[in-house]
Amino acid sequence: MVDSLVTLLTDFGVTDAYVGIMKGVMKAIAPTLSMIDLTHDIPPQDLWAARFNLLNAVPYFPNGTIHLAVVDPGVGGDRRGVAIQLPHCILVGPDNGIFSGVFQPYLDSGMVEAIALTNPVYWRTPTPSTTFHGRDIFAPAAAHLAAGVSLHQLGNRLDPRSLKTLMVPESRDRGNTIVGTVQYIDRFGNVMTNVKGAAVQDGPWSVTMGGHQLQGQTTYGTVEKGQPVALIGSHGWVEIAVNGGSAQRYFAIRPGESITVLRLEPGSG
Amino acid sequence: MVDSLVTLLTDFGVTDAYVGIMKGVMKAIAPTLSMIDLTHDIPPQDLWAARFNLLNAVPYFPNGTIHLAVVDPGVGGDRRGVAIQLPHCILVGPDNGIFSGVFQPYLDSGMVEAIALTNPVYWRTPTPSTTFHGRDIFAPAAAHLAAGVSLHQLGNRLDPRSLKTLMVPESRDRGNTIVGTVQYIDRFGNVMTNVKGAAVQDGPWSVTMGGHQLQGQTTYGTVEKGQPVALIGSHGWVEIAVNGGSAQRYFAIRPGESITVLRLEPGSG
Amino acid sequence: MVDSLVTLLTDFGVTDAYVGIMKGVMKAIAPTLSMIDLTHDIPPQDLWAARFNLLNAVPYFPNGTIHLAVVDPGVGGDRRGVAIQLPHCILVGPDNGIFSGVFQPYLDSGMVEAIALTNPVYWRTPTPSTTFHGRDIFAPAAAHLAAGVSLHQLGNRLDPRSLKTLMVPESRDRGNTIVGTVQYIDRFGNVMTNVKGAAVQDGPWSVTMGGHQLQGQTTYGTVEKGQPVALIGSHGWVEIAVNGGSAQRYFAIRPGESITVLRLEPGSG
Repeated sequence: MVDSLVTLLTDFGVTDAYVGIMKGVMKAIAPTLSMIDLTHDIPPQDLWAARFNLLNAVPYFPNGTIHLAVVDPGVGGDRRGVAIQLPHCILVGPDNGIFSGVFQPYLDSGMVEAIALTNPVYWRTPTPSTTFHGRDIFAPAAAHLAAGVSLHQLGNRLDPRSLKTLMVPESRDRGNTIVGTVQYIDRFGNVMTNVKGAAVQDGPWSVTMGGHQLQGQTTYGTVEKGQPVALIGSHGWVEIAVNGGSAQRYFAIRPGESITVLRLEPGSG
Repeated sequence: MVDSLVTLLTDFGVTDAYVGIMKGVMKAIAPTLSMIDLTHDIPPQDLWAARFNLLNAVPYFPNGTIHLAVVDPGVGGDRRGVAIQLPHCILVGPDNGIFSGVFQPYLDSGMVEAIALTNPVYWRTPTPSTTFHGRDIFAPAAAHLAAGVSLHQLGNRLDPRSLKTLMVPESRDRGNTIVGTVQYIDRFGNVMTNVKGAAVQDGPWSVTMGGHQLQGQTTYGTVEKGQPVALIGSHGWVEIAVNGGSAQRYFAIRPGESITVLRLEPGSG
Repeated sequence: MVDSLVTLLTDFGVTDAYVGIMKGVMKAIAPTLSMIDLTHDIPPQDLWAARFNLLNAVPYFPNGTIHLAVVDPGVGGDRRGVAIQLPHCILVGPDNGIFSGVFQPYLDSGMVEAIALTNPVYWRTPTPSTTFHGRDIFAPAAAHLAAGVSLHQLGNRLDPRSLKTLMVPESRDRGNTIVGTVQYIDRFGNVMTNVKGAAVQDGPWSVTMGGHQLQGQTTYGTVEKGQPVALIGSHGWVEIAVNGGSAQRYFAIRPGESITVLRLEPGSG
């Protein structure tokens, strides 16, 4: 039998041993689980960056993977800790919207189950730290699930529609114009919009943003070093980059800003 | 059977492949062992930071875990390489005090065994590098232990009382006043004292430090952004933090400085 | 049976989830493989740093290890993706010279087999991203090899002599003088030459570089803090370091610069 797989995403960094401690807690509960780091460099308390990275990483993992994420500005307050069962994976962490990009597409399907992590039997200690639920509640929950404990043993069932969501506006597709938004900027300064690449892959296209217009290309290398380029990024979103540089700096652009994608007539532009 | 677990803590960083090489050496000796990184970002040659992180991380790992740590300013000189057997774990690395926070509580119990890593049969090569004992002596020792070699095969027994220690002064508890010391500051600027949280958890308390007095709270969020707060940190020490900021910068405080904790009458303060 | 081992080396950093995604893709194909990070902090698109780290790390891994490396400025262009079988390991990644330090010594032996990763059956998708072959072509290839697929199923055989190489000039040994080159500088500022330590280990020696002459020593600690030292580094190359500092800054030296090693008469210098 293949051992259970748990991924970890946090904003703890790797300078202190916080992440290692969560892994030790999990290995003590489920000695054969294996673990993969998504990233521990989410900017401190940046729920949107956590949401984006989970949304884009989860689809590449095997069925049954448990995704543990702790970006948790409300730790010790009244936000809930949750475990969310989807058809292909389980999500464990704070109920603050970081998982919403993953579970939202399933909400209408009736294929989502969620519980609040209220059963202290499955905490590391009946008196958890008020500042480190990752160690005392979330890592133990993920490990118990990996070891075969059922979702419903971990706590009270809750209505999946009550889970907190972080809403990224849908892009609006109007004939040959798609109005979208910048949803994330990665550490290279690559700008990810919320326009799906599938919407433009059948012909020539361009992006307009802050007075600039960029032809859609297929690779970074189609423009000179230091020049901007629009392309369908590896995550499948329309993306704006600068070859060998930062589109964030080049355009002084920020998450939430508006962009417009135009489908062009072949030969035009 | 569950595979052996080895943790790694170094000051090597992860920019070069030094850590990966140590892992390769271990996998070549003990193919089924599994490994967890505690951190590789200990400030270069900072024995105190290594000591603090080991002290706080080791208790969360399963019994039998082997903790390999290489922060080793004396490499190639006459400091000893050691393996130390405690009831719940084995420690492998240089004898320079980094493990002393872990083994000191056991010294009087007679439950500590220690050896010097003097047997070249269990080195990677009979002519180890003078600059990288992590690869040539410590990683092989950890892996051989993981593979079932006994402690005493690795070298000569030594008196555990001869192991080097880094002494953190004990906090002194006098009625309602506890005089303590800053023992560590993490990368967020959170200041860890050497006063145990258990000493203040039964009632209201405050911390005095450099002319400032802070009420003891339970979470970072009980004060405004940018304001300082005293609380029992996740490691179980009285800790001074700044909500969303750095207590180290706020108070210009350093390891070794003195702090005073007061137990308050309920209703006072 | 021992599970297959895959190492990873990239310039992706660990701030975004790109590396985690490659690992998810591999686990979905070969659930029992285990993975070790060499480094993900190769300077962006620095083929020479990738070459040096692979060259030095590969020898420490068990026979049969699969080394996956993605430093790939030509992604989406016409550079080939390759898998290279050597007697002790398999290399998977772009054909841009990053593996050449590893395979060059075997080229004349007839013990190298190489294929281009042309068979889309073993890609993650028949329409791979133009910007992330690590996820869509290289990680799947490594995982399929780990799961027992043979090299030749992955694509067309190619002549190993057609593989791209990054040429580091050989050092030239003339009597008591060896003329060499700086081949790499690590993140501590330690300067690695291309002169093998074996060439000087039998007696006293010195290094001349930019008007400075340094006696060969055995450890960093033989000179005062802040002073330069020449020694045989842990990778086995003649190395120039500064005790507690950066030789790169001390000497303002760069890769490619020339250095001279002198074998000294015992007692001279």
